Amino acid sequence: MSIKKRKIINDPVYGFITINHPLIFSIIAHPYYQRLRRIQQMAMAQLVYPGAVHTRLHHSLGAYHLMCNAVMELRSKGVEITEEEETAVKAGILLHDIGHGPFSHALEHIVVKGVHHEQLSLQIMQVINEELDGQLDLTIKIFTDQYHKPFLHQLISGQLDVDRMDYLSRDSFYSGVSEGVIGYDRILKMLVVHNGQLMVEEKGIYSVEKFLVARRQMYWQVYLHKTVVAAEKMLVKILERVRAIYREEDEMLSTLSDLDFFLGKFNGEMNTAALEKFCSIDDHDVMHAIKRWSKHPDKILSLLCTRFLNRKLYKARIQAEPFDENYIEKKKHETAEKFGIGMEDIGYFCFTGEATNTLYQTKDERINILFKDGTVKDISGIENALIQQNLSAAVKKFYICLLD
Amino acid sequence: MSIKKRKIINDPVYGFITINHPLIFSIIAHPYYQRLRRIQQMAMAQLVYPGAVHTRLHHSLGAYHLMCNAVMELRSKGVEITEEEETAVKAGILLHDIGHGPFSHALEHIVVKGVHHEQLSLQIMQVINEELDGQLDLTIKIFTDQYHKPFLHQLISGQLDVDRMDYLSRDSFYSGVSEGVIGYDRILKMLVVHNGQLMVEEKGIYSVEKFLVARRQMYWQVYLHKTVVAAEKMLVKILERVRAIYREEDEMLSTLSDLDFFLGKFNGEMNTAALEKFCSIDDHDVMHAIKRWSKHPDKILSLLCTRFLNRKLYKARIQAEPFDENYIEKKKHETAEKFGIGMEDIGYFCFTGEATNTLYQTKDERINILFKDGTVKDISGIENALIQQNLSAAVKKFYICLLD
Amino acid sequence: MSIKKRKIINDPVYGFITINHPLIFSIIAHPYYQRLRRIQQMAMAQLVYPGAVHTRLHHSLGAYHLMCNAVMELRSKGVEITEEEETAVKAGILLHDIGHGPFSHALEHIVVKGVHHEQLSLQIMQVINEELDGQLDLTIKIFTDQYHKPFLHQLISGQLDVDRMDYLSRDSFYSGVSEGVIGYDRILKMLVVHNGQLMVEEKGIYSVEKFLVARRQMYWQVYLHKTVVAAEKMLVKILERVRAIYREEDEMLSTLSDLDFFLGKFNGEMNTAALEKFCSIDDHDVMHAIKRWSKHPDKILSLLCTRFLNRKLYKARIQAEPFDENYIEKKKHETAEKFGIGMEDIGYFCFTGEATNTLYQTKDERINILFKDGTVKDISGIENALIQQNLSAAVKKFYICLLD
Amino acid sequence: MSIKKRKIINDPVYGFITINHPLIFSIIAHPYYQRLRRIQQMAMAQLVYPGAVHTRLHHSLGAYHLMCNAVMELRSKGVEITEEEETAVKAGILLHDIGHGPFSHALEHIVVKGVHHEQLSLQIMQVINEELDGQLDLTIKIFTDQYHKPFLHQLISGQLDVDRMDYLSRDSFYSGVSEGVIGYDRILKMLVVHNGQLMVEEKGIYSVEKFLVARRQMYWQVYLHKTVVAAEKMLVKILERVRAIYREEDEMLSTLSDLDFFLGKFNGEMNTAALEKFCSIDDHDVMHAIKRWSKHPDKILSLLCTRFLNRKLYKARIQAEPFDENYIEKKKHETAEKFGIGMEDIGYFCFTGEATNTLYQTKDERINILFKDGTVKDISGIENALIQQNLSAAVKKFYICLLD
Repeated sequence: MSIKKRKIINDPVYGFITINHPLIFSIIAHPYYQRLRRIQQMAMAQLVYPGAVHTRLHHSLGAYHLMCNAVMELRSKGVEITEEEETAVKAGILLHDIGHGPFSHALEHIVVKGVHHEQLSLQIMQVINEELDGQLDLTIKIFTDQYHKPFLHQLISGQLDVDRMDYLSRDSFYSGVSEGVIGYDRILKMLVVHNGQLMVEEKGIYSVEKFLVARRQMYWQVYLHKTVVAAEKMLVKILERVRAIYREEDEMLSTLSDLDFFLGKFNGEMNTAALEKFCSIDDHDVMHAIKRWSKHPDKILSLLCTRFLNRKLYKARIQAEPFDENYIEKKKHETAEKFGIGMEDIGYFCFTGEATNTLYQTKDERINILFKDGTVKDISGIENALIQQNLSAAVKKFYICLLD
Repeated sequence: MSIKKRKIINDPVYGFITINHPLIFSIIAHPYYQRLRRIQQMAMAQLVYPGAVHTRLHHSLGAYHLMCNAVMELRSKGVEITEEEETAVKAGILLHDIGHGPFSHALEHIVVKGVHHEQLSLQIMQVINEELDGQLDLTIKIFTDQYHKPFLHQLISGQLDVDRMDYLSRDSFYSGVSEGVIGYDRILKMLVVHNGQLMVEEKGIYSVEKFLVARRQMYWQVYLHKTVVAAEKMLVKILERVRAIYREEDEMLSTLSDLDFFLGKFNGEMNTAALEKFCSIDDHDVMHAIKRWSKHPDKILSLLCTRFLNRKLYKARIQAEPFDENYIEKKKHETAEKFGIGMEDIGYFCFTGEATNTLYQTKDERINILFKDGTVKDISGIENALIQQNLSAAVKKFYICLLD
Repeated sequence: MSIKKRKIINDPVYGFITINHPLIFSIIAHPYYQRLRRIQQMAMAQLVYPGAVHTRLHHSLGAYHLMCNAVMELRSKGVEITEEEETAVKAGILLHDIGHGPFSHALEHIVVKGVHHEQLSLQIMQVINEELDGQLDLTIKIFTDQYHKPFLHQLISGQLDVDRMDYLSRDSFYSGVSEGVIGYDRILKMLVVHNGQLMVEEKGIYSVEKFLVARRQMYWQVYLHKTVVAAEKMLVKILERVRAIYREEDEMLSTLSDLDFFLGKFNGEMNTAALEKFCSIDDHDVMHAIKRWSKHPDKILSLLCTRFLNRKLYKARIQAEPFDENYIEKKKHETAEKFGIGMEDIGYFCFTGEATNTLYQTKDERINILFKDGTVKDISGIENALIQQNLSAAVKKFYICLLD
Repeated sequence: MSIKKRKIINDPVYGFITINHPLIFSIIAHPYYQRLRRIQQMAMAQLVYPGAVHTRLHHSLGAYHLMCNAVMELRSKGVEITEEEETAVKAGILLHDIGHGPFSHALEHIVVKGVHHEQLSLQIMQVINEELDGQLDLTIKIFTDQYHKPFLHQLISGQLDVDRMDYLSRDSFYSGVSEGVIGYDRILKMLVVHNGQLMVEEKGIYSVEKFLVARRQMYWQVYLHKTVVAAEKMLVKILERVRAIYREEDEMLSTLSDLDFFLGKFNGEMNTAALEKFCSIDDHDVMHAIKRWSKHPDKILSLLCTRFLNRKLYKARIQAEPFDENYIEKKKHETAEKFGIGMEDIGYFCFTGEATNTLYQTKDERINILFKDGTVKDISGIENALIQQNLSAAVKKFYICLLD
C-alpha cells in the first residue's frame, strides 16, 4: 500500500480538512499565504465578541474544505469536473482573499486607498503563478470568470459561494452568535448545475432562505454592531490622523515596518515593489504602531491610540433615521470643549455615518432555484417566499460616534 | 422594575457569560486586564491547530463563568459563601493569569527569566488593589491561600480548579481536538465541600477520570505536539540569540517597545518600574520584533526569524527513549555543515530536550472523593480506578529538533 | 453541610436539568406524567427524520428547565417572583402537555374527537391537584390565566413561551435539522416584564426574528413535510377505517387496551371514568393495534396497516395552489381501479387536504418589544423588521396523497 | 446532467447520511429492516437518560455512514476495495444487528433463550439474500469472515469496528453523557490496512486510547448504571414470571402477538416459521403486554408490571465486593415479609448479580498499531500507554436489587 502525501488539519467547525495535492501544498507553504495567519478575519469584532479572533488563513482553509465537498457533491450528481478543474478551483478559493491587508475590511480603504482587495488578490495570484511556472493559469481564468464553465467561478464568488458559506459558519461559530448558523452541508447537497450555472434544487429553498436570514442577522448583530463599528472607526481615525500629520522625519511616527510606505509615499499605484511591501504587512504592524503612537506628542493621535488599546471606545448610537443636524452640532461642540480641541479636528472625536445591509441583492448575481419541472426562478420571485422583492432593498442605518 | 447594570458576553464555549458586579466591571476595564486580549492562550499551537488563536482574556472570562456556576452549585448544596467571598473569588479567577507575558508559557522563562507568572499575577493584583482602594484585599488573601476557607483557594488553584476546567474545554474547543472535551458541567455539579476542602461526590468519579485522561490527551496531542514544541523552541532560540548578540547601540535589534528593556537591562528584579514595563508588552511586540529581526545582519537571527514567519520550522522527532549521543553528534555536524555555521552556534539549529507530562500528580494537591458513608479517598487509591498509582508517575519523552 | 434532595438529569440539548423541589418530584413520579414517556413528541416525523423519536416527557422536562432559567433571569432584572409562584409556574410547564394522547397532535382529533389537549391537560391537573391536596391551586390559576401576574401565564403559553422554545430547540436537535436552531438562551436573557406583561428588550429583536423564521422553517421542512403528512394521514385513515367498521363483537378489532373504549363507546363526554381510561393509553397501544389489524380480514384496514408498518406510505405531492378537480378525479379513479375498491372507499387511498403555517400570528397574543425609551411595539410593526404585516398572513399549501 | 437515484437522511450525529445504491435501498425498504425502527437501541436506559430513545434502525444507518467514510479513507490511502466489495460491506453493516429482538440486549437471552443475536442476524441475512437472488452472497462471506480480505470483516466486527464507533457516538449523543464522546472521524482517518488486517497509524494512538476509555465510561455510567440495571432486570423478571405461570389457556397472559409463541411453545429451535415470527415482534408487543399484565390476577406479575410502567423500579446498590450472604438473606426476608410473598418467589423481588466490564479485551481480537518503521504492536503493549495489561483484566461489580 502506497500512501500519497496527505495531511489532515483539525478544524473545530468542520472536523478535519484534508490536503492531498502538491499544488495545494505549495500554495499553503507560500509566505504570502502564511501571512494570512497574522490577519484577523473579523478585525475589531473581538472587542465585542471575544472569541472572534480567527484568522484569514483559517477562513481560507475552511472555504477550501467546503469547495472539496461541493466538487464531490456535484460530481456525484453527474456534473463533469476534470481533475485539473478541481485543483484549479480549490487553488482559487484558497487564494481568493490573499489580497486582504491588516484587519481585513476594516482598513481596506485606508491602508491602500483606492485599491480593492479582489484586485490585489488577482495581482498576488499572478506573482505566485509566475513562481509556480503557470500552475495557476486555469485558476486565474476561473477567478476572473473567463472560463467556459461559469459555475466554477460562481463557487468561488457568487451569491451562494463557499466563501460566504464559510465566513458565516466560521464567524458565527467563533463569535458564539447562534443566529448566524447556516445549514452549509444541506446547501452543498442541494447545489446543481443547469446550463452551466450554479443553482439550488427546489427542496433547498428553505436552506437558502435560512442562509439569507442568517447573513442579515450577522450583519446587524455582529459586523455592524454599534460597538464594532465604533472600534473599527477608531482604527480608521487613527490612521487618518497619522496621514494628516505625517512627516517622514518624525521618528515617533515610524513603525519600523513596510506600513510606513503606505502611510507616506504610496501614491495608489500598486507596482511590483509596492505589492511586495503590501505582502509583508499584517495586524501586528498596525498594533505595534498604535502602541507606539500612544506615546506620540500629538495629543489627538496619542489619545485615540491609548483609548483604542484600553478599549475605551467611541460611544455609539445607531438608529433608523439620520440624526438631527442640530443634535450633531451640539454634540460636536460639547465634545470639542470637553477635550479642548478645535472644531477643525472634531472629526476625530465626533462624527456620523451610515451602515448598509441588504438581505438579498437582486441586482447582483441571483440565487436561482431549479424546479423539478425544469423551470428556473430567482429566490425572490417565488410565491410565499420569505425573501421578497420589497425585502431585497438595502436597509440603511445611521450612527453617531463620540468620545466621552 | 429597576435593572441592575449587567452585561452579557457571547461565548461559543458556554453560551453567555454574565457580568453584574461593579468590581468585576472595574477589573475587566483595567488596561492591564485588556492587555490579555493581545496575548494568545496557546502561543504557537496555532501553527498546527489553526483555530487555536483564542486569547488569555477569553480564557479568563471563561474561568470566571465556571466560577459563577461553581459558587451557585455549592450554595445550592448548603455550602456557605457570603456575597463578599463570592465577589472576591470571582475577582481572583479573573486575575489569576494577569501575570502572563507575551505568548504565555512559551516565553515565560525567557522574557522575565526567573520570575514565575503566578508571582507576577500577585504583584499586579497588588498594584490594582491599591488603585481600587483595597477592594481586592480578600481576593489576595484567597489567592495566596491565607483565608480560612481553603476550598475558595482550591477553586482558583488546585487539581480540579475552574482554571483547568476552562483551559481544557476552551483549548479543545478552539483547536478542534475532541479528545480533550471534558464534562465540566457534570464535574461542577459533583463538587462538594467537606471539612473546608473541595471534593468530588462519589458518583463524579468517572467524570474526574475523564478529566484526567482528557488532560493527558491534550498534553501529548496538542501542548507537546512535536511541531508545536518545534515552533515554541524556535521562538525561544530567537530570543536567546537576540540576548547573545545584544548591544544597546544595535538599532536593528531595537523593537521600539518595552520589550527592549527585558532583552537588555532587566536584571531579574521586578520592581515597580519593571512591572509597569512588563504590563505594556504583548504578542504584537514580539511578532513585530521578529519581522524586523528577519532583516538583521546577524545571519543566525535573520534565518530563524524568516523561517519562523514562513512556518518553515525545525523538523522534530519525539520518542520514548533518549536519542543516541552519536546520532545527535552526527546530526549536529550535518546541520552545521549545511548552514555553514560553527559548532559553537549549533544549539540554534539542532538540539535535544525533554517533554514531561503527568496523568495525575499525587504529590501535589490531591483530588479527593467523598463517599456516601463519609469516607474520603484520593482518586488514585480507589479500587479499579483508571488512574492508578503506577500511572501517576511522570511520563517523559525526548525530542530532537533541527533545521533542514 | 446538609444536602437538600436534588436530582440532576442529563439532557443532550441543555446539559443538565436540576430537580430540587418536593412538588416537582411528586409530579414527575406520578403515573400520568410517566405515561408521557410512552408518547413520542413528533409522532410520525421519525419516518423521515429517524432521530426524531424523543418523548413528550423529555420535552416537558426541557421546557421546565427553560422555565427555571427564565425565572432566574427575570429575578436578576428585579422582577418579583415569590417562591410559591416559582414552584407553581414550574409545575405548570411540566403539566402543560399532560393532556396529550397517543402520537400527540397526529391523532389528537381522532382518538378523543372534539376534545382539545389543553382542556384535557387542565382536567388532569385538577385530578392530580386533588391527590396532592391542592398543591396545584396556584398552578391552575396561572395556567388558566386567572392570576394577577399575566407574565407567568405567558411564560407557559404565549407567542414566546418556554414550551415553544423547547420544542423548536429539541425537535431541531433530534431531527438534525439545523434550520430550526434558535438562540433560546439569548431570548431568555432578553425577556423583561413591563406592566405585568412579558416582553423582549430592544436588542433582542434579531433573536426573536430568528425564532420566528426558525419556526417557519421547521413547519415546512419537518412538521408539514409531505412524507410526514402522508404518514400521519395514514395513521388517521387507519383509525377512521376502524371506526367505520367497528362492531364490539369483532374480536380482531379489539386492541386489548383502553383504546377500545375510544374507538367504540366514547361519546365525546370526558367524565372521570373516561379520563382515567384516556390516561392509560399511549403509542404502544396504537402500534400494537396496527400490527394486529394488519391481519384483519377487512382488506382496506389490513392493507393500510401493513403499508404503514413497512413504511410504504402514501405518495404525496404538495404545492402552492389547489389541485385541479379533474386531476384529483382521475387519480381517484386510477387508484380505485388499481386496488380494486369502490369509489365509496376511495378516501382511504386517495385524498387531498391543506396545510397551513403562519410566520407570526398578529391576531393572537403579540410579541412585544420594549424600547429603551419605554415605548412598546409589536415586532411586526417595527421598521425594517423581517417580519412584516404582509408576512404574518397564513400561508396555505395543498397536498394530495395516494397509494401507489 | 443525469441524477442518479440518491437520498439524503438528516442525522443529528453526523449531519447527513447518503444512500445511493439500489441494493442499499432494497435492504432499507425491507420490512425486516423497518422493524428495527420499533426497537430501541438502549432498551431501558431511557428511564435514567430520557433522551436515549433512539432506535436500532438509526444506529444501523449511522454505522453505515461511518462505513462509507471508512471505505473512502482507506481507498484514498491506496487500499484496494472494489465497488462490489464496497457495496457488500455497506450491506453487511446495515444488517449486522438485524437479529436483535425487542429491547435489544436487555431481553436477548430471555425472549429467544439460547440464540445469540449474531446468529439470528446471519439467518435473517440468508432469508433476505434468497429474496434478493443472491445479491448478499459476498456480504455473507464477509460477515462470516470467510473472505480473503479480513479487514472488511473487521470493519463490521472487531475491536475497532464502525458498529462500536457508532453506538458509542450515538449513545453518548442521545443520552447527553459527554464522557462517551469519541473522535470517530479522527479514528477513521487513522485506519490503515497492513497485511490484509485493519490497523491504526501510530499517530492515532491517543484517539484509540480515548475510544477505549470512553467505552469504559459508557459502561459504568450508562449501560451498567445501577438504575438501568434495575429496570432491565425488572423487564427480565416480568418475562420470567410469565414463563413460570404460563398456560396457553390463560387468556389474560396472551399478548395477541407473535410474542406468545416465544413465551410458550418455542423450544429453542429457530426454524423458518419461528424466524418469521421473530421478525414480527418488537418493543411495542412487549410494552403492550406489560400494560395488559399489570391487570393480571397473578399478584407478582401485576405488581412488577405496574411498578415498571410507573417507574417505581427496584432499589439497586452496586459495589466492588460481593454482598455479604447474611445481608442478602436479611434483605430477602424483609422484602418477602413486606410484600407478603413466600421465599420461593423472593427472586422476583430481591436478588443479586454481577456486572462486568473490560477496558480492553486482549484475548479477543486486538487493536494493532502500525508504526512508521513498519512494526506492529498491540495497543496494550505500547510503553507508557494508558491501556496496560493490568487494566485489560475484566472489572466485576456486584449489585443487589430489591423492591421497597
